[in-house]
Amino acid sequence: MKIVDLRKSNWESDPDLNRIKNRGQGLEGKYAQSVLEIIENVRKYGDTAVFGYAKKFDRVDLTPENVKVSEIEIEETFKKVEPEAVEAIKLAVERVKRFHEHQKENSYFVTEDGMVLGQKVTPLDSAGIYVPGGKASYPSSVIMNAVPAKVAGVKKVIMVTPAIGSLKVNPYSLVAAKLSGVDEIYRVGGAHGVAAIAFGTASIPKVDKIVGPGNIYVALAKKFLFGQVDIDMVAGPSEILIIADETANPEWVAVDLLSQAEHDELAGSFLVTHDEKTAFETVEKVNELLKKLKRKEIAKKSIENFGTVFLTENVKHSCEVANVIAPEHLEVATKEPFALLDNIKNAGAIFLGHYTCESLGDYLLGPNHVLPTGGSAKFFSPLGVYDFIKRSSILYVSKEGFEKVSSFTALLADIEGLEAHGLAARIRDEKKIKVAQKADN
Amino acid sequence: MKIVDLRKSNWESDPDLNRIKNRGQGLEGKYAQSVLEIIENVRKYGDTAVFGYAKKFDRVDLTPENVKVSEIEIEETFKKVEPEAVEAIKLAVERVKRFHEHQKENSYFVTEDGMVLGQKVTPLDSAGIYVPGGKASYPSSVIMNAVPAKVAGVKKVIMVTPAIGSLKVNPYSLVAAKLSGVDEIYRVGGAHGVAAIAFGTASIPKVDKIVGPGNIYVALAKKFLFGQVDIDMVAGPSEILIIADETANPEWVAVDLLSQAEHDELAGSFLVTHDEKTAFETVEKVNELLKKLKRKEIAKKSIENFGTVFLTENVKHSCEVANVIAPEHLEVATKEPFALLDNIKNAGAIFLGHYTCESLGDYLLGPNHVLPTGGSAKFFSPLGVYDFIKRSSILYVSKEGFEKVSSFTALLADIEGLEAHGLAARIRDEKKIKVAQKADN
Repeated sequence: MKIVDLRKSNWESDPDLNRIKNRGQGLEGKYAQSVLEIIENVRKYGDTAVFGYAKKFDRVDLTPENVKVSEIEIEETFKKVEPEAVEAIKLAVERVKRFHEHQKENSYFVTEDGMVLGQKVTPLDSAGIYVPGGKASYPSSVIMNAVPAKVAGVKKVIMVTPAIGSLKVNPYSLVAAKLSGVDEIYRVGGAHGVAAIAFGTASIPKVDKIVGPGNIYVALAKKFLFGQVDIDMVAGPSEILIIADETANPEWVAVDLLSQAEHDELAGSFLVTHDEKTAFETVEKVNELLKKLKRKEIAKKSIENFGTVFLTENVKHSCEVANVIAPEHLEVATKEPFALLDNIKNAGAIFLGHYTCESLGDYLLGPNHVLPTGGSAKFFSPLGVYDFIKRSSILYVSKEGFEKVSSFTALLADIEGLEAHGLAARIRDEKKIKVAQKADN
Repeated sequence: MKIVDLRKSNWESDPDLNRIKNRGQGLEGKYAQSVLEIIENVRKYGDTAVFGYAKKFDRVDLTPENVKVSEIEIEETFKKVEPEAVEAIKLAVERVKRFHEHQKENSYFVTEDGMVLGQKVTPLDSAGIYVPGGKASYPSSVIMNAVPAKVAGVKKVIMVTPAIGSLKVNPYSLVAAKLSGVDEIYRVGGAHGVAAIAFGTASIPKVDKIVGPGNIYVALAKKFLFGQVDIDMVAGPSEILIIADETANPEWVAVDLLSQAEHDELAGSFLVTHDEKTAFETVEKVNELLKKLKRKEIAKKSIENFGTVFLTENVKHSCEVANVIAPEHLEVATKEPFALLDNIKNAGAIFLGHYTCESLGDYLLGPNHVLPTGGSAKFFSPLGVYDFIKRSSILYVSKEGFEKVSSFTALLADIEGLEAHGLAARIRDEKKIKVAQKADN
């Protein structure tokens, strides 16, 4: 791991810090055109295009008959999976569901001047959960995407996940889907799978919103289809930043950094500390552990690409560095983690204290593990129930209320040169509104 | 206006209804490549690219010195604008602010098993308000975009609006910006203006989120920059749908339809009624009024393009038609409008009763007038305070809490083949967790 000293006045312009700060930029350019073409073909040719791309990219023969996972297939899977795995998945579903219940929102209104003004909250009709296939097929992803949709009250939650090389879908993902309340599963993925559920085809239904992580093709397809459907966020490689002081256990910190690094060669693992001893001991532990891990090839490349230790003046300076990087996961491994909460502005999820390792949150503490990456924690939120509802404004004005605001409305309409807007107020007004005509400016 | 009879069993497949239902699709294809190129050039060349495009598209000479609207220019404008216009804008700002205060959200947490789990709510650091220039420069747009950002607590709200042909910016928009609390104003627009505030240039600051309506170039730039920054929604032409019964006043209904049609040749004006008399009388009134309006050329083209009356079986059928179309604005001009609220699922804003004409809401009732168009009310919400905050999950686990969940975490990590994830739980566990190893499925 590279050690970068930020104990200097111009620390914010440090090149290593800025390389990490801008990690989310400029990945998409070269893929844009081919993704736009895939989308256009799926829009025009439906199933024919989707099945063609599945053959080409995923080496699998899909048909209208086999693209949907059958109830029998799901039942068979439950018989094959170990009971203790089913129990653990059940516990995760329960805990995630319990936490997300607190995110439900109510319709509301206020009254004034004979008016009723408010917002009506309605769940989306349908949502599509994208679950990556192949090696990166994770049942926890299914739970974290599907449960908030179901808690929000979405009637039809469908899951798409690519079958690659064969028709088989990860059995634990199927179990997680069933236990999370997913209504239908389709074994299709990639940009073509995303386009399929954005437009609907003869054998795959259209949804109102698409959520869930995927590779660059999936991320771009979601972005380009934003507007046609809603999407959650644009997800990039996973990342962790750990703020540590002298009370942190360097071995625990090292393991947590590696639990991010083992995901992906582009994953980011950052340690920020004002304690040199913690810094050096953690680096040593990372190097030791790297030799033993099963996924050491991936983890090693990830640490070489992005693994960085930042040395700071003090723990508040460490928080400032964290805010600049805006990490997906932030662990605060310090003596008094809650004392720093006010200083932390930008992070997808904040894990406080020495026992709160990120992997607990990845699986079953309750809060969502779908989190903003690449610095987008500056403006994006964790996936939640709020992602699966929409609001409609409610406006009611009595005759009395109308009379209080109609003349101002007519004046503002005059200013904007929208005659019929003003006429709508004037025509309802028995007193025939008189308003000053605007002078030309 | 075309009259379409939906009093048939297969009304949902009616071609006129479906043309309107799919009105939001497929506009962008031919503009994508040029917008991607503009974005790439602004990213690489900053001010040089932005000022070059302003010269080319807006025929205006921008420099680092004149791109920002000065405080003096704003003060001068206040002296020129009529006092009653300033008063009306002030009233609108106050009312919109008062309504949006109710949308503020609190951080929250729950406790269980020695754990603290919750979400921290933080306002975005900065936001950029896009305000269209030229003829479509509306002070109400400024208010509706800026006020929710300021209520959310965003410290730096900047406005961009294109100066076209000369350096002049609409004076009412400047007044509205100042009174709404906008911090800085830049006279730049188009796809290049959007890219400028997404990346930041030497003379224009970067923001975290970009909101506000614009033409197809602006809409596409926002879409392609989604992820680099957050955006609100992809806005299209404005539209109104009016559900009316025999208690509606045909002349009032006609004016309200035209107050949408006068916006834009592509605006949509739809009447849905089970009362034939109301239908025919409204069409007559529309034709009469069309002859008199100042903006009759635009309104007439708009009515020819999209103006439609749908005849239905009854008022509930009318609500179903509205849900299929999912209009931006929905007026319910019936005897008992609140009785239908439960039947209405998809609409940006719902105006209840005969006196609640859309233009009241456009200007100053309080709810936001930035609303989802093109059918996207199925999944998008009105702009609100919730668009200018973000959430961070909070997780704290005591040693006791850790012991309740650590073994399940290790098991789930084993299932997903993520060794270090499991190790993070195992290494903290004094009892050394034993979990069944998964069988291969």
